[in-house]
Amino acid sequence: MIFRPLLLAGTALVLSFAAQAAELRGTGDLGVVVERAVGQVAVVDRRASTRLATVAGLGDLSHASVVFGPSERYAYVFGRDGGLTKVDVLTGTIDRRVVQSGNSIGGAISEDGTLVAVANYEPGGVTVFDAETLDLVADIPATSIGDGKRSKVVGLEDAPGNRFVFSLYDTDEIWIADFSADRRSPALTRFEAIGRQPYDALVSEDGRWYIAGLFGEDGLAMLDLWHPETGVRRVLDGYGRGQEALPVYKMPHLEGWAVAGGKAWLPAIGRHSVLVVDLDTWEQVAEIPVHGQPVFVMARPGGRHVWVNFALPDNGTVQVIDTERLAVADTLEPGPGVLHMEFTPRGDRVWLSVRDRDQVQVYDTETREKLATLPADKPSGIFFTSRAHRIGL
Amino acid sequence: MIFRPLLLAGTALVLSFAAQAAELRGTGDLGVVVERAVGQVAVVDRRASTRLATVAGLGDLSHASVVFGPSERYAYVFGRDGGLTKVDVLTGTIDRRVVQSGNSIGGAISEDGTLVAVANYEPGGVTVFDAETLDLVADIPATSIGDGKRSKVVGLEDAPGNRFVFSLYDTDEIWIADFSADRRSPALTRFEAIGRQPYDALVSEDGRWYIAGLFGEDGLAMLDLWHPETGVRRVLDGYGRGQEALPVYKMPHLEGWAVAGGKAWLPAIGRHSVLVVDLDTWEQVAEIPVHGQPVFVMARPGGRHVWVNFALPDNGTVQVIDTERLAVADTLEPGPGVLHMEFTPRGDRVWLSVRDRDQVQVYDTETREKLATLPADKPSGIFFTSRAHRIGL
Repeated sequence: MIFRPLLLAGTALVLSFAAQAAELRGTGDLGVVVERAVGQVAVVDRRASTRLATVAGLGDLSHASVVFGPSERYAYVFGRDGGLTKVDVLTGTIDRRVVQSGNSIGGAISEDGTLVAVANYEPGGVTVFDAETLDLVADIPATSIGDGKRSKVVGLEDAPGNRFVFSLYDTDEIWIADFSADRRSPALTRFEAIGRQPYDALVSEDGRWYIAGLFGEDGLAMLDLWHPETGVRRVLDGYGRGQEALPVYKMPHLEGWAVAGGKAWLPAIGRHSVLVVDLDTWEQVAEIPVHGQPVFVMARPGGRHVWVNFALPDNGTVQVIDTERLAVADTLEPGPGVLHMEFTPRGDRVWLSVRDRDQVQVYDTETREKLATLPADKPSGIFFTSRAHRIGL
Repeated sequence: MIFRPLLLAGTALVLSFAAQAAELRGTGDLGVVVERAVGQVAVVDRRASTRLATVAGLGDLSHASVVFGPSERYAYVFGRDGGLTKVDVLTGTIDRRVVQSGNSIGGAISEDGTLVAVANYEPGGVTVFDAETLDLVADIPATSIGDGKRSKVVGLEDAPGNRFVFSLYDTDEIWIADFSADRRSPALTRFEAIGRQPYDALVSEDGRWYIAGLFGEDGLAMLDLWHPETGVRRVLDGYGRGQEALPVYKMPHLEGWAVAGGKAWLPAIGRHSVLVVDLDTWEQVAEIPVHGQPVFVMARPGGRHVWVNFALPDNGTVQVIDTERLAVADTLEPGPGVLHMEFTPRGDRVWLSVRDRDQVQVYDTETREKLATLPADKPSGIFFTSRAHRIGL
C-alpha cells in the first residue's frame, strides 16, 4: 500500500494509524495472489497490474483458496494446515487468524456474508466461523468411519438461502447445512449413497445445481437446490477415468467448470480432451482434442472462449477454445507450471500464475497479447474481489 | 460518512484532508439512490441498509441513470439536462462535473473503465469523456435530419471489446463505435433501416446481443455483436403495441429485461402481461397475466423469480413470478410510485424506490419480509456498485 506521510498529534490516535494511513480507495479492482511456498499473499491492483502489498505469515498455502466478504475489504484465506486468515486488503495486514483443524481443504462464505465455513479432512467435518470475529459459530462433524475417525469433507460450496453444501468422501454423502433460520444450529439434510468417493464439487453460477465429481466410479452426482426433496441423481454416466483406467496426473478441478451458451465445458479425466455437454439433456455433444490432460476449463465472462490449462508434463501450455467452432483457436506458452487462471469480471483480461517462472502474467483475452508480468514467489491461486458478488465461489 | 477526529500537524497535509478523513472501507457493498426532485443522490450501505452520505448539486435527475468505474469508488451520474457528474462514494463528494449537452438520456462506461459515453437528444449524438478527468475525448454526431438537427440517440450500451452500441431514434439506425484501436477516433459501423423509431435497447448479460425496441412498429431489432457483419435481424415480430393500439401509459424499460433458464421475460406493451420467450427460437412460449402494465421485469440473480413493477395507475404494486410455474407467486403493496428495483448481487435482497412515500424499502427476496425502510426524497433509480463488474449495464 502507499503510505502517506501523515503526521499525527496526540497518542490516542496511534491505534488507528495503520488503517488511516492506508490510501483511501475503491476495492472493486483489487485481488490477491497466493504465493504458496512462502505462506503469503500479494494484494494486487488488477487494472494497474501492480502489487500493492505483501501479507506474510499465513501458514501452509498448498491448494489454498480465497473468498471475499461482501464489502470486498476482507479476503478469507483457507490454508491446507487448517489455518483461516482474514486479510485486510486495504491495509495489507492480517485482521484475524485462527488455526482451526489439522488439515483442511477450502471453504466458502455465506450468501449474507456473515459466516465463513471450512471443509476439514482431519478431523472430518465443517467448521463455521463468524466472518467478523472468526469466532466459532457452528461445528458440523462428518459421519464416523470408525477408530474415532470421520469422513473427509470436500466440495464445500455456498448456495442461496444461506446454505452450505458439501460432500463426504469416505461415506458417499452430500449434505446441506441451512443457516437461514438459526445461525448457530443449522438444519442438516443428508443424501446417502450418492456415488463412490465424491472428491470435488461445484455450484452452478445460478446457484441451482450442486454437482460432485466421483473418484471411485464414473459419472457425476447432481442435486437440484431448488428442489432438494427430489434427491441426488446421476448424470453423465461415462464421465470419469473409464474402464481403461488411464494414469491421471492430476484430478481436474470442478470449480473451474465453464458454462457457456447452454453447454458445460468439462475437463476429460486422464484424456487429452475437453468434453462439451448439453445442459438440458446432460448428453455429451462434442469432444475437443487439446494439448494435454486439462486441469481448469474456464469460460471467459460472456462465453466467447474457454481457456484450458494442463497437468504435468504439459503445464507450460494454455489453450483457448472457440465456443462456436468447438475447436482450439490459440495456444500460448506462458512457461512451466501454469497453475491457475483468473479473468477480470468483464472478461477483457486474464491473469495466469506461472509458478516455475515466479511470475504472474496478464493477457488481453481478445488479442492474446501479454500486457504485463509481475514477479511473484511460486504463485498459485489468483482471486479478484468481484468474486464477492457471485454465487458458489 | 463517518469523520474520525484526526488531528493533523503541519499544513502541507490540508489538501488531502477530506480524502483521508473519510473512513477507510471496502466499496463492494455500496450503492447510490437517485433523489430526482432535489437533484441529489444518497450513498448507501446495502448490507446495513443505511444512508452514508448525500451528494447534492447534480441538476435535473429525471430518468437519471448511474454507472460505476471498475474500482467502484466513482459513480457517474447521467442527468436529463446533459449533466454528467462523477461522484466519489467514499468521501460523499462531487469529484468532477460537466454539463455537456442540452438534453441527454443515459450513458455507459467502457469495458476497460477509461471512457464514459453519454447519449444525447439535443444536439443528437454521443459524447465520450475520459473517466478520470471528464475531459472530452470524442464527439460522435448522429445522422442529420435537416434544419441543422440530428437524430436523437437512445439505447446506449457498452459491449465487449471497448465498444459502445446505440440506436438513432429518428433515422432508424444502430451504430457501433469501437474504441479498441484508437480512444480518440472510434471505428464506426452503421446499420440502417433497422426498424422504425428504436426507443430503448439492451445488451444481453453475456455481451453478445444488442436488442432494440421499436416505437414505430411491432418487433425488435437484434444485432449479434460476435458477428456484426451478419447485420441486424428482426425478431419477435408481434412484440409491440399491436393493431389495437392500446393506450400505453409508459413504454417499458428494456434494460431491465430478465433472462433466466434460457428464456427472456419481457414486459408486454400496453397489456397486463409478461411475455416469456425461448431464447433459441425467439418464439413466445407463454404469456403470464399480471396486475397492470409492466415497466421493469427483472430476474432475481439466479433466476428463481422474476419481479415486476407497473405503470400508472398500478404503480403501487409489485409482483413476483415463479419462473418454473410461470405464474405469479406473490403480490406486494409497497406503496404508490414504485419506480425501480435493484437486487443485491447474490439475489438475497431487493431494494425498491417508493417515490410517493419518500421511501426506499428493502425486502428479503425469499420470504418477501420487509427488512428495512430508508427515508429518501422522491427516490427513483437505485444502483449498487457490483454493476461495475457486469457487461451492458
